[in-house]
Amino acid sequence: MSAPRAIVLLSGGLDSATCLAIARAEGFDAYALSVAYGQRHAAELIASKKVASVLGAVEHRVAHVDLGQFGGSALTDASIAVPIDGVQEDIIPVTYVPARNTVMLSLALGWAEVLGANDIFVGVNAVDYSGYPDCRPEYIAAFEAMGNLATRAGVEGHRLRIHAPLLRLSKAEIVQRGTALGVDYAMTVTCYQADDEGRACGECDACRLRRAGFETAGLADPTRYARG
Amino acid sequence: MSAPRAIVLLSGGLDSATCLAIARAEGFDAYALSVAYGQRHAAELIASKKVASVLGAVEHRVAHVDLGQFGGSALTDASIAVPIDGVQEDIIPVTYVPARNTVMLSLALGWAEVLGANDIFVGVNAVDYSGYPDCRPEYIAAFEAMGNLATRAGVEGHRLRIHAPLLRLSKAEIVQRGTALGVDYAMTVTCYQADDEGRACGECDACRLRRAGFETAGLADPTRYARG
Repeated sequence: MSAPRAIVLLSGGLDSATCLAIARAEGFDAYALSVAYGQRHAAELIASKKVASVLGAVEHRVAHVDLGQFGGSALTDASIAVPIDGVQEDIIPVTYVPARNTVMLSLALGWAEVLGANDIFVGVNAVDYSGYPDCRPEYIAAFEAMGNLATRAGVEGHRLRIHAPLLRLSKAEIVQRGTALGVDYAMTVTCYQADDEGRACGECDACRLRRAGFETAGLADPTRYARG
Repeated sequence: MSAPRAIVLLSGGLDSATCLAIARAEGFDAYALSVAYGQRHAAELIASKKVASVLGAVEHRVAHVDLGQFGGSALTDASIAVPIDGVQEDIIPVTYVPARNTVMLSLALGWAEVLGANDIFVGVNAVDYSGYPDCRPEYIAAFEAMGNLATRAGVEGHRLRIHAPLLRLSKAEIVQRGTALGVDYAMTVTCYQADDEGRACGECDACRLRRAGFETAGLADPTRYARG
């Protein structure tokens, strides 16, 4: 019997690489999907290709969609600065990209349906995160409910599942889990404004959360920083 | 006081043109969004530009996303023939594009959030339609619930609404409604395989449903057919 297929959303960052390793460990044939949505830098997408290959994805695709044309985020609009003053509580930061996770999960939904895959993995996290509304457990549950009505699944009696295995893990727990599964985090790029070589700024929210994760986990941080 | 803003998904076909006219009649400033998803022909998108202009949209944007790369539909894969034998009951036809409405609504969700619009109009119809799962009332309700959790709306207490004013109308009722609102359907293209001039085949499901709608409504059919 062949393994069940799963779509794994893969950004090239730490979380989604861990998510891919988990999908593989759970016995899925993984189809990795990266989305070029107009992010500031290409380093993440370059990393995603390597991560997909090293972690044994059956296939890796890049879907292009220009969310930058709508604006409204520091990640897609170079005229909005990426904050470097630390994670703020209780506000949605300017690095939030409106509807990004919904667009990416929707593309995964389409590919899943064509492949006959009933499982989609996404590396969202609601513990050490930046306060984005589309990283909350209730959002993931609502997307799953919607996805089951959107597709053949709802008509033909399959059951689509959105797996968010990192949802309730701290960043430290995520790197511990991935390290146990053999993920080499040196190949991942997390920084919101990495340079062309994939080197991290060390100052943005994503860098701060990542660095703190390795520290708390007591693991060496393999991140390549542009400074220091 | 300025009018509230609404995103209107606009394909260039009969249903979405009617939907735009309804949004305008309800007092919204309409921001029309068309999605180039890899459909077989460009005639629909050309029509959408004209429809947006004639019906008074404030702005018209075309978002590009390649659903054709996933395949699985006669509308995005030229090697799969468009059926011309009439609408079949109780099956999902090959013209169904996996997750298309979800991807399009997700893009609308992103633009709505940036514009501060709480309203999205979509011309789906569950009466005279082709049996697509993502045209059902329960799907629209589930998308709305998900959208309210996906965005700032869910955090900041706005309420996003997905308007599907055609959902329970027959095709005849739709053309009657649009005609009363002054829509000139000659500028719309509904056919699944229109030629470069926007002329309809007259044989596909979309053509059959459209033609029957005009007949039942007792209105002249302004459609330009390639034959006859």
